[in-house]
Amino acid sequence: MRKYYVGIDIGGTNTKVAILGRRFAILNKISFPTTLFKTPQRLLTAITDSIFSLLKKRDIGLKEVSGIGVGIAGLVDAEKGVIRNLINIPHWRGLNIKHYFERIFKIPAFVDNDANVMTLAEFYRGAGRGSRNLVCLTLGTGVGGGIVIDRRLYRGSTSSAGEIGHIPINERGPKCNCGGIACIESYIGNRYLIKALIRRIKRERSSLLKKMIDGKYSDLTPELVFKAARRGDKFAIDFWRMVGARLGTMLTGVINLLDLDKVVIGGGIAGAAEYFFPSLQEKIKLNAMEIQGRHVKIVKAKLGKDAGLVGAAVLVSIERDK
Amino acid sequence: MRKYYVGIDIGGTNTKVAILGRRFAILNKISFPTTLFKTPQRLLTAITDSIFSLLKKRDIGLKEVSGIGVGIAGLVDAEKGVIRNLINIPHWRGLNIKHYFERIFKIPAFVDNDANVMTLAEFYRGAGRGSRNLVCLTLGTGVGGGIVIDRRLYRGSTSSAGEIGHIPINERGPKCNCGGIACIESYIGNRYLIKALIRRIKRERSSLLKKMIDGKYSDLTPELVFKAARRGDKFAIDFWRMVGARLGTMLTGVINLLDLDKVVIGGGIAGAAEYFFPSLQEKIKLNAMEIQGRHVKIVKAKLGKDAGLVGAAVLVSIERDK
Repeated sequence: MRKYYVGIDIGGTNTKVAILGRRFAILNKISFPTTLFKTPQRLLTAITDSIFSLLKKRDIGLKEVSGIGVGIAGLVDAEKGVIRNLINIPHWRGLNIKHYFERIFKIPAFVDNDANVMTLAEFYRGAGRGSRNLVCLTLGTGVGGGIVIDRRLYRGSTSSAGEIGHIPINERGPKCNCGGIACIESYIGNRYLIKALIRRIKRERSSLLKKMIDGKYSDLTPELVFKAARRGDKFAIDFWRMVGARLGTMLTGVINLLDLDKVVIGGGIAGAAEYFFPSLQEKIKLNAMEIQGRHVKIVKAKLGKDAGLVGAAVLVSIERDK
Repeated sequence: MRKYYVGIDIGGTNTKVAILGRRFAILNKISFPTTLFKTPQRLLTAITDSIFSLLKKRDIGLKEVSGIGVGIAGLVDAEKGVIRNLINIPHWRGLNIKHYFERIFKIPAFVDNDANVMTLAEFYRGAGRGSRNLVCLTLGTGVGGGIVIDRRLYRGSTSSAGEIGHIPINERGPKCNCGGIACIESYIGNRYLIKALIRRIKRERSSLLKKMIDGKYSDLTPELVFKAARRGDKFAIDFWRMVGARLGTMLTGVINLLDLDKVVIGGGIAGAAEYFFPSLQEKIKLNAMEIQGRHVKIVKAKLGKDAGLVGAAVLVSIERDK
C-alpha cells in the first residue's frame, strides 16, 4: 500500500528532493541550490512544489506514500522535528519542519541532521550493512558523525549525540568553531585543512602542488591536494598521511570506548581515502586495544551523494515502525 | 520466592562474597586477600565455601537464591562467562567462571568485569539513578569505565566496550600499558600518577608534601597528595587541578560524542574529588559543546567499596530477566 517515500536533503549548498520506492531505491529526483531562496519559507515552498511535481510525474498518490523524511545540515531536535540552529543560514531556529510538512501533506514527517541520516543510509543500504554497532563519519566542511548501537540509531539524551568531530585529540591546540580546543575537526575540517595546507606549503620549495596553484592560495582545495598526491607529489602524500594519523588517534579512542563492528567513512575528502586510509589503519593497528582493534573494520561509505535521500527514506521507515 | 542474590567481587587485592536481599541490600559478607590463593582453583574453592557458610548463617536455601553474580578485575567475555585475561594474576585465561558456579550450585551465574559491575550498581542503586544514558568511571590503578545506553549496560561487539581509560588525550605522549599512546590512564592511572608526582616533586623546593615524605619517594600515594592538599599545599592542589583538567579533556570528547545525562566518577582517587572536580567541571563548561555540556551532570559515585557486590547482584537480576 504505502510503498513509497519522500526523501529531502537540505544541504548548505544544494537541496534535493526525491521519491523512493522498494528497498529505498530512488525513482526520481530534483536538485536546486539552497541559497537560491532567501527565507526558509521560500525554500520550503520550493520543496513542497517539487514533491507534488515528482509525485505527479510518477502518478503516485499521497495515499501510497509512507511518509516524508528530511535530513538537514544543522542542529535538529529529532524528537520534536524542530530546527535548533543552521550554521550559515539564518532564520531557521525554532522552525518545526515536521509539523510544516505534516500539515500540508497529511502524512507523517520525520527530521534529523544530515550525519544521522547518512548513518542510517549506510547502515541499512550501504557499507554498514550487517553490523550491530557502528560509527559513521562524514568528512567535509565539518566532521560529522552518527552512532548505531544494537542496530538502532543512537541520538543521546538531548538529540545531540554523534559529534565525533568534536573529540579533542590534544590538550592544547587550535581553537575549534564549537568552542572546544584541538577537536579533530579543528585539524581536518575543510576550512582548517586548507589553512594548515597554506601554512605548510608556503615553507615548501619544490612541491608539485605549489606549482599547480602557482601562488594562488585561494585555489587550494582538498581535491587539488588529492590530484597532486595522485601525480606522486611527496608533499601532498605526506599531508594525507598526517590526516590519516590524526583521524586514527581520534578513532582509537572511539573504538576502545565503543567496541564497534565497523567505522564507515564518507563525505567530501573520503575521496582521498587511498591516501589517508593506510596511515589511519596503521594507527589503529598499533595503538587501539587488541580485541577491539582486531575486530573493527574501517570501510569507505558506499552511497555517495545520494546517501542523504536514501537515509531520509530509511528514517521514515524506522520511525513509523516505532 | 527467589529473593536473595549471591554477589562476588574478585579484585586484585581483596575478594568479597556477600548475600544480598531486597533492593540489593547486603545482608552479610566475607572478605579475604585474593593473593592468599596461589591458583584460581583454590580461590574458587574458598569462594564456594564462603557462599555455603554465608547462606547457612542466614538460614537461606539455594532455592531462595535468584543467582550468583561475579565482578572481576580483568577482561571478561560476559556472554560466555569466560575470563579472557587477568592482568597480574596468571592461570585464569579461558576459565569459565559461569559454568563453574552453575555446576556447583545449580542456579544461574553471571560474570562481568568490575567496571561494568560498578556501573550497574551506580545506575540502579547509586549516583546514576534516574538517568537514561551515562558513563561511569573508576579511577584507581587503572582507569576503567562502563556505559549505559537507553537504560541498558552497553557491552559492545566483543564484550569489550567501556575502556574509557584508553582514550588518548594527545597525539604524542607517554606509552600506555594497553599498547596505546597518551591514553588518559597513562597520565592519571595510579602507577603513572605516582611517577609523574615523583618527577615533579623532585623539582620542588618548599612543598609540604615533599617534607611529608622526607625523601622517601616510595611513600608517595594519591592519599598522601590528598592529605597535603587538605593542609593547603600548593603543589598538591596544583597537581589535583591538573588531574581534573586532563580528565576534563577526555570527558569533553565523550560527552560531545555520547550526549549523556550523567558521568559518575568513583574509585580510589575519587576521594580527592573536591580538589579535581572544579578544574574538571570548568574544562567541560568551557570546551564541551553547548547543549551536551549544559545537560550532563558530573557526579561522585555513591556506593564506595560495596559497589562491586551490589553490582554483581544487579547483574543477576537484569540477566535473569532477559
